[in-house]
Amino acid sequence: MKLFSRVLLCVFALTAASFAADRDPKVLLQAERAFAKATAERGVDGWMEFMAPNAVELNAEPLVGLDQIRAGMTRQFKLPGFKISWEPTKAEFLGAGDVGYAVGRYEVRFTGKDGKPQVEHGTYLTTWQKQKDGSWKVVSDIGSPDPPVH
Amino acid sequence: MKLFSRVLLCVFALTAASFAADRDPKVLLQAERAFAKATAERGVDGWMEFMAPNAVELNAEPLVGLDQIRAGMTRQFKLPGFKISWEPTKAEFLGAGDVGYAVGRYEVRFTGKDGKPQVEHGTYLTTWQKQKDGSWKVVSDIGSPDPPVH
Repeated sequence: MKLFSRVLLCVFALTAASFAADRDPKVLLQAERAFAKATAERGVDGWMEFMAPNAVELNAEPLVGLDQIRAGMTRQFKLPGFKISWEPTKAEFLGAGDVGYAVGRYEVRFTGKDGKPQVEHGTYLTTWQKQKDGSWKVVSDIGSPDPPVH
Repeated sequence: MKLFSRVLLCVFALTAASFAADRDPKVLLQAERAFAKATAERGVDGWMEFMAPNAVELNAEPLVGLDQIRAGMTRQFKLPGFKISWEPTKAEFLGAGDVGYAVGRYEVRFTGKDGKPQVEHGTYLTTWQKQKDGSWKVVSDIGSPDPPVH
């Protein structure tokens, strides 16, 4: 009985530890950085690797699902001099730990119609959801550009 | 010149105050509570009053736009004994202050197939966007149910 109690306690401790580890915001921050790295390296293909099947890009006209997102992002990446990069500033899990979000700063660069390089900065919010295979993928993404500096 | 400087300072102070007020999370918390109150009082009609034209309900099959959301939420509200309520726990603006999000706890009640009342609790994340008329509306909403208690 004493051994059984110890085994139970041990199982409980391991479960609690794994639960705590699963909810560590580092998991989401790492997913964000892997997403940014894949996009820097492989462009739209890298971007798409991190999209959940039910992902939505939250624009005035939302891009819904993988086909719409790939088409919309391909147009973006084809802009002259287009480059997007970002760095998360914080992340948090919601209730059960299967959904979380990250907030961060992004930078978009492209060449304007006048041939001059343009830079846009802003803040973004990405929602992540754990997939059935254990990977984390993006279900939604919204950006808020900084007001122009005068 | 002295008067001019004072006027300038005054304009600056007023602008700064209004900018700070605009970014006060209370704005979003109040919008969340008004959204919850309207839904408690008027069901799906109250819910729809707070949806932006480009709103998305982030489910396994996302509901996109006002028609899909109204149809999906009408099905929910027709469930026997259905009642949804929520309370925000925190809110924050993104960069420019035209987009923000709120996190909070929700409760869903309905009558199960066995006739017994069911209760589900969870955490939600709502993204808000300022509309052209100055009102705040929901552009996305995702919930994460708590794991079942054993």
